[in-house]
Amino acid sequence: MIILMNAATTEQVNRVLDKLRQLGLDSHLITGLHSKIIMANGDLSVCNPALYERMPGVDKVLLVETPYKLASREFQREDTIVTVGCASFGGKTIPVIAGPCAIESYDQLYQAGVTAKAAGAAMLRGGAYKPRTSPYSFQGLEKKGLEIIKAVGRELELPVVSEVTDPRSIDLFAEHVDMLQIGTRNMQNFVLLKEVALSKKPILLKRGLAATIEEWLMAAEYIMASGNNQIVLCERGIRTYETFTRNTLDLTAIPVIKHVSHLPVIADPSHGTGSWRWVNPMSKAAIAAGADGLLIEMHPNPEEALSDGPQSLTPENFSQLMTDLDGLTGALGRLLYKNKGE
Amino acid sequence: MIILMNAATTEQVNRVLDKLRQLGLDSHLITGLHSKIIMANGDLSVCNPALYERMPGVDKVLLVETPYKLASREFQREDTIVTVGCASFGGKTIPVIAGPCAIESYDQLYQAGVTAKAAGAAMLRGGAYKPRTSPYSFQGLEKKGLEIIKAVGRELELPVVSEVTDPRSIDLFAEHVDMLQIGTRNMQNFVLLKEVALSKKPILLKRGLAATIEEWLMAAEYIMASGNNQIVLCERGIRTYETFTRNTLDLTAIPVIKHVSHLPVIADPSHGTGSWRWVNPMSKAAIAAGADGLLIEMHPNPEEALSDGPQSLTPENFSQLMTDLDGLTGALGRLLYKNKGE
Amino acid sequence: MIILMNAATTEQVNRVLDKLRQLGLDSHLITGLHSKIIMANGDLSVCNPALYERMPGVDKVLLVETPYKLASREFQREDTIVTVGCASFGGKTIPVIAGPCAIESYDQLYQAGVTAKAAGAAMLRGGAYKPRTSPYSFQGLEKKGLEIIKAVGRELELPVVSEVTDPRSIDLFAEHVDMLQIGTRNMQNFVLLKEVALSKKPILLKRGLAATIEEWLMAAEYIMASGNNQIVLCERGIRTYETFTRNTLDLTAIPVIKHVSHLPVIADPSHGTGSWRWVNPMSKAAIAAGADGLLIEMHPNPEEALSDGPQSLTPENFSQLMTDLDGLTGALGRLLYKNKGE
Amino acid sequence: MIILMNAATTEQVNRVLDKLRQLGLDSHLITGLHSKIIMANGDLSVCNPALYERMPGVDKVLLVETPYKLASREFQREDTIVTVGCASFGGKTIPVIAGPCAIESYDQLYQAGVTAKAAGAAMLRGGAYKPRTSPYSFQGLEKKGLEIIKAVGRELELPVVSEVTDPRSIDLFAEHVDMLQIGTRNMQNFVLLKEVALSKKPILLKRGLAATIEEWLMAAEYIMASGNNQIVLCERGIRTYETFTRNTLDLTAIPVIKHVSHLPVIADPSHGTGSWRWVNPMSKAAIAAGADGLLIEMHPNPEEALSDGPQSLTPENFSQLMTDLDGLTGALGRLLYKNKGE
Repeated sequence: MIILMNAATTEQVNRVLDKLRQLGLDSHLITGLHSKIIMANGDLSVCNPALYERMPGVDKVLLVETPYKLASREFQREDTIVTVGCASFGGKTIPVIAGPCAIESYDQLYQAGVTAKAAGAAMLRGGAYKPRTSPYSFQGLEKKGLEIIKAVGRELELPVVSEVTDPRSIDLFAEHVDMLQIGTRNMQNFVLLKEVALSKKPILLKRGLAATIEEWLMAAEYIMASGNNQIVLCERGIRTYETFTRNTLDLTAIPVIKHVSHLPVIADPSHGTGSWRWVNPMSKAAIAAGADGLLIEMHPNPEEALSDGPQSLTPENFSQLMTDLDGLTGALGRLLYKNKGE
Repeated sequence: MIILMNAATTEQVNRVLDKLRQLGLDSHLITGLHSKIIMANGDLSVCNPALYERMPGVDKVLLVETPYKLASREFQREDTIVTVGCASFGGKTIPVIAGPCAIESYDQLYQAGVTAKAAGAAMLRGGAYKPRTSPYSFQGLEKKGLEIIKAVGRELELPVVSEVTDPRSIDLFAEHVDMLQIGTRNMQNFVLLKEVALSKKPILLKRGLAATIEEWLMAAEYIMASGNNQIVLCERGIRTYETFTRNTLDLTAIPVIKHVSHLPVIADPSHGTGSWRWVNPMSKAAIAAGADGLLIEMHPNPEEALSDGPQSLTPENFSQLMTDLDGLTGALGRLLYKNKGE
Repeated sequence: MIILMNAATTEQVNRVLDKLRQLGLDSHLITGLHSKIIMANGDLSVCNPALYERMPGVDKVLLVETPYKLASREFQREDTIVTVGCASFGGKTIPVIAGPCAIESYDQLYQAGVTAKAAGAAMLRGGAYKPRTSPYSFQGLEKKGLEIIKAVGRELELPVVSEVTDPRSIDLFAEHVDMLQIGTRNMQNFVLLKEVALSKKPILLKRGLAATIEEWLMAAEYIMASGNNQIVLCERGIRTYETFTRNTLDLTAIPVIKHVSHLPVIADPSHGTGSWRWVNPMSKAAIAAGADGLLIEMHPNPEEALSDGPQSLTPENFSQLMTDLDGLTGALGRLLYKNKGE
Repeated sequence: MIILMNAATTEQVNRVLDKLRQLGLDSHLITGLHSKIIMANGDLSVCNPALYERMPGVDKVLLVETPYKLASREFQREDTIVTVGCASFGGKTIPVIAGPCAIESYDQLYQAGVTAKAAGAAMLRGGAYKPRTSPYSFQGLEKKGLEIIKAVGRELELPVVSEVTDPRSIDLFAEHVDMLQIGTRNMQNFVLLKEVALSKKPILLKRGLAATIEEWLMAAEYIMASGNNQIVLCERGIRTYETFTRNTLDLTAIPVIKHVSHLPVIADPSHGTGSWRWVNPMSKAAIAAGADGLLIEMHPNPEEALSDGPQSLTPENFSQLMTDLDGLTGALGRLLYKNKGE
């Protein structure tokens, strides 16, 4: 923490130094021609920069420490690999998760799973509890949906992932799915983050709609601080002024995350762009940027989807995408995980 | 819903018309020189525009209906007035809620309450469960905090408000506070929205960090659809590229809300700007824009605050603000509610 | 400038110190337990922080100096007052500039001017060269427009302002108008900024569509560095994700500017909101936030306007606004300038 | 254009229809149970939707026409290919433009050109007139810089591109460079757009810092409407709330542009991310997304660069990038243009 006190009196400077000392922080005062600066090192959880900003004589407080610890590359140099059944995120091999936005019936999900697996997908996704902007939109099959995804996963030998939105449902999810997803709208639902960690299941942590990379890593830090480091981050587009696409897929976040953190990071070009038309090129772009996997919306019949139809691939689109990715990953020195269909 | 199908074949158009008919929607086809357009009217919860966007021949689907119903001015022409003890939001009189970001101790909150009331505040605020970006920051006194705010509120005869973050705590909150706040990060925590409505308590609904006005009203719609229309909306700044201020206070949202909805709307210039320095001018600006009240962070000793010190007013700042507002509200044809201090 | 070099070797640190010394910058090295930090003071135009960010061992370079000098409150403590005929910006009295977006004919502008003056406006605005998003939209009457605004201004004894977009037209503008406007799209047209300064006329400098407050002040710095300090800043809304309003009027920028700079700042709620409906409340809000004036689009017949009709006030709307502002300014300890109509 | 008039009276509807008729627009009225809608077709440059929004009874005006004509895929189905010497943008082969942000000396640019060409670059870039946020920053060598880039280009047989900022310099640029760049800050400098078109030279049109894809295409439309269709669009990052990277590179814009327009589009990951560290992965991502080329900042000695050092690649970085791209383009069914070094 750096405290700038350019025009401060000696008394004002001493008050700040006293306070730092009380909290056990190591501090230095540097006096220049036109500036007085205090450097403070120590336990960040104690020092609370906000406290100093309001003290007389203080111009500015600059936080130079990285706020995330367990999630940082400094804390752990080697890449974390998160394994969910046959899917491994963070290594050389790249798994693709596919499936519909919402689980609509056993038949719909089974059909989705069969085509996903046949094309090589490593995991099946499907929403049972849907956070919808409108209370009048389809809210998901709830518990029934979880039973369906568990059954389909077992039948097809595909690990499954679904989004949890209520801390009271975590146990139920843990019984039915192999990986728990924290959705965009809940990235800073800290109650949920703390408790989902306790499930000991791998967590798919989506970036918040307007979350900075730092806030996203702090959400991961919540989960890790509760004892669970099986986290896969997922870039899914951020909100900007551009309205041509539903969101702006921030692919630079991928190499940034790989640089500052050891956690695996995948991309969701379906939500990230909002239209099936951009999913193929942006999937390739995500992999070229270094993504450790993809999360793709695919529906047996997108025209009839109860949720997010416009951004869903058809089975044919998805199969083409997997073929395209196969060649691409090789050129990038990686390997596409290809499930063996039934 | 308007469906544009400029270059569509007759067969493609008929497929769309068939689907609309199946769902019981009234539809018209208009054929122009270079365009084919379908207008569909009926129950929006059924029509799901996304379904059509993916159908062959469809260029664009435009939703022209207002998605919120109960929250709209069309549904209820007269203003809703929400009353919490002596405070009434939505009428001619303007109440101010004041207090610290976080409850730190009985003494701190009592002192805050005494000075708030002496300056004329109508309600006391204080956080017991704090949603913090870092798991290592102070997370609030939790249940102990609620007991403190209840006790202080009774002692000082001030209605109190605090933020609820967990659906399992709603009953506890309902026993301790007069109004339940839904915070920015939980504006789309739909589980929480549905259940907080059942408390039958008045709700203070903050705008999400990157929520559109429409999404914000849809969050209110969730609460209203669950049977509670005692909602006060609170503009608290949105996230933009500007970093000089913590957030960008979107005051135009206030006249917009007053025009399209019957719900009262107040402003929180403390979070909205992030610095005590801008709280006085932006409080006045909010009132001049038509706000039905203010939510102000005030701390007996901001330098020592465990949370949000930089944006807290001192008791002297707050007292000055109330004096400034007194003259201003008169010039605007409104009236500042002024509590009689002890 | 602060240079963080936490894990740097002594040799790396010495290379940075050498470079700073070569450029004549005064520097200090502070070594902590886990950090090495260099503070450098001196002529910012020489030090170019970007140079250091790329040097081995450097983690981060923090610029702590204010980049604007002449525009800063440190450079000049007392408020700058910019006078254009009867209008003075930056003092106790608040002038209002009104008029149509585009000059369409002598009659249209004359009619606008008469009603503006009758309601008390201090200045008349009107665009002759219109920067339009589409090449197919009306581009203004150009030179003919300037002749009209000059004639109307003289006839009505109203100072006039119009937007200049081409450095080659500056002399022409200087002959025809009393104040030159730099529009949003040209805020960083540095060629134009440098030359418009040489006109020695007062400049109305609008904020860029996505400009930070700092970049805006740097644009003013360009004009001041070229020898002209007769600048009035104008907040006109920034681009955000919110689409309900055309732009997001950032009123907090007003007290921020008043704090960090000595230049006057006014608001343009017409462009800032995009609809006449929000102009009245947001004009009041701007004044309550501390604005030194307003720029209001008003058209004798908005339905027939060739540009920006939806956000234009009618003469009746404008007259009502001036009445509303009259009471408000008094309550704020300021005074509305009221022209005496003919 | 669609005009919604749900609660309008017959008289109000007739007024709108009359006005449309006067302007020669073909219009239809559709009356539903709860809605009245007018569809108008015809010359968009005449109809000005804004005019109707303000008319009594009108709820909303929806513009459904594409505002760009010449730049649209409807106007021209086959891809435009822009050729600048050996570089062709828009075909199967992908050219890379490299060079320093600013031209500093003949030696610096010559050295940059030699290493760029040796690694396979198709074109050389370098700024002579630099638009800088601060008037105190290095503003470029100006005319001297143009002479240098012309000489180096000839010497090395590399086509060259540089940014023009002043309409009065266009002829000078046309004599010295093979392609004229319109920079981010001038994307809506319409005076410059119209005149640069007349140079008959190929134009590199960068996206504005906060420009929508539509506004960007409208800027291209300005150039095309002035008779020049040799335009290469360049995505260079947009401004968002994320501060970890200098800008947010919006790669989805690439497939979007390829879909709606026939113009070639390249990416500038140097400005798009702001750090050399992300240039390699984001270059690959841009190509995978479908970009027709790249614009890369490369400096013989980035630590000494007078502008944008942090985001410049070293010659070694650049050479590695070209090797990486070589394999990648093949896997994508395209071909990297590789200049034969001297």
